[in-house]
Amino acid sequence: MDGQLILHEDARSGNCYKIRLTAAHLDVPLTRRNYDIMAGETRTPEFLAGVNANGRIPVLQIGDRFLPESNAACFWLADGSHLIPGDRFARADMLRWMFWEQYNHEPNVATLRFWRAFVGEDQLNDAQRSQLAAKKSSGEAALKLMDEQLSRTTWLAGDSFSLADICLYAYTHVAEEGGFDLSAFPNVQRWLSDVARLPGHVPF
Amino acid sequence: MDGQLILHEDARSGNCYKIRLTAAHLDVPLTRRNYDIMAGETRTPEFLAGVNANGRIPVLQIGDRFLPESNAACFWLADGSHLIPGDRFARADMLRWMFWEQYNHEPNVATLRFWRAFVGEDQLNDAQRSQLAAKKSSGEAALKLMDEQLSRTTWLAGDSFSLADICLYAYTHVAEEGGFDLSAFPNVQRWLSDVARLPGHVPF
Repeated sequence: MDGQLILHEDARSGNCYKIRLTAAHLDVPLTRRNYDIMAGETRTPEFLAGVNANGRIPVLQIGDRFLPESNAACFWLADGSHLIPGDRFARADMLRWMFWEQYNHEPNVATLRFWRAFVGEDQLNDAQRSQLAAKKSSGEAALKLMDEQLSRTTWLAGDSFSLADICLYAYTHVAEEGGFDLSAFPNVQRWLSDVARLPGHVPF
Repeated sequence: MDGQLILHEDARSGNCYKIRLTAAHLDVPLTRRNYDIMAGETRTPEFLAGVNANGRIPVLQIGDRFLPESNAACFWLADGSHLIPGDRFARADMLRWMFWEQYNHEPNVATLRFWRAFVGEDQLNDAQRSQLAAKKSSGEAALKLMDEQLSRTTWLAGDSFSLADICLYAYTHVAEEGGFDLSAFPNVQRWLSDVARLPGHVPF
């Protein structure tokens, strides 16, 4: 590792939890610095200039360099470790689930949790409200795709636990806070409990 | 390479172009198989069962294995090549831009192009119509973030052209089809022309 590792985070964010969970599995210490996203603490001029011009957490600070994007930070931490498959196809397949998470899972499963559990349904604007049904059905389609994969394989990519499992676990295990019923996805439930039982696991 | 490489694609999709551009830079031949997404050809039972249960293109077929997600397919193709930085931080920073593309750029810059140039603005439903303004401003914020980065560096990640540039080029160079005005982003324009002048480049 090069220099101290500082995780700029809001501890309630699943994206930040991904990085803590990766670090825990690798036994790598992180210094945590908390920001309240609901209070706009990641949109201050200091944060935008000094941590992330995109105004978002998490950011992993590595010495004097800053790495935004949760899945990229997990990759940096795990690079060269057992959490990234050595096989070329399995490595790309792991990334396939991580890119899919950003496009198909996070904007639905995580956003509905954010809107319901943090913003509050009565505080949503009209544009958000008009997306509720589409995000619910897209989120269910995402969970169904995971369920089908996990009916055939123990883990999402390759033959072993990888970053794909960590990055999908983060918001899937709290999907019910967004109004999703996980009892419809038994293979996802089996996998959630397998992840949580691994040595090195840490809770949200 | 293991076995024949088949790109399941709709040639009008920027996500498919990313893979063709990566393969061109690596001088790797791809067999192309075209599907008309507007005619639902990626939602047939045959496609869902045999190519991608997620009903989306592109999918890179590697022998008898199938790899969905454009950025993951680019990574598979480029693994071990000069298109992925050898330095650990630069490699993660490349992935940072590629994850950011899926969450912040593609749903705005690419979706507005799709809605305007393919679906047609008069065919949009109310939920889509209510998102037009937000997608315009989020897309402009994404282009601005790229412009700031490209005011400081020649390429998006590390010191050399990488998959980050290929994956962001695909939809950025046709952003005007989505109603974005690239003249506001001079560093993005400089970078677009640098990418297009590289040996090995192929047009959309």
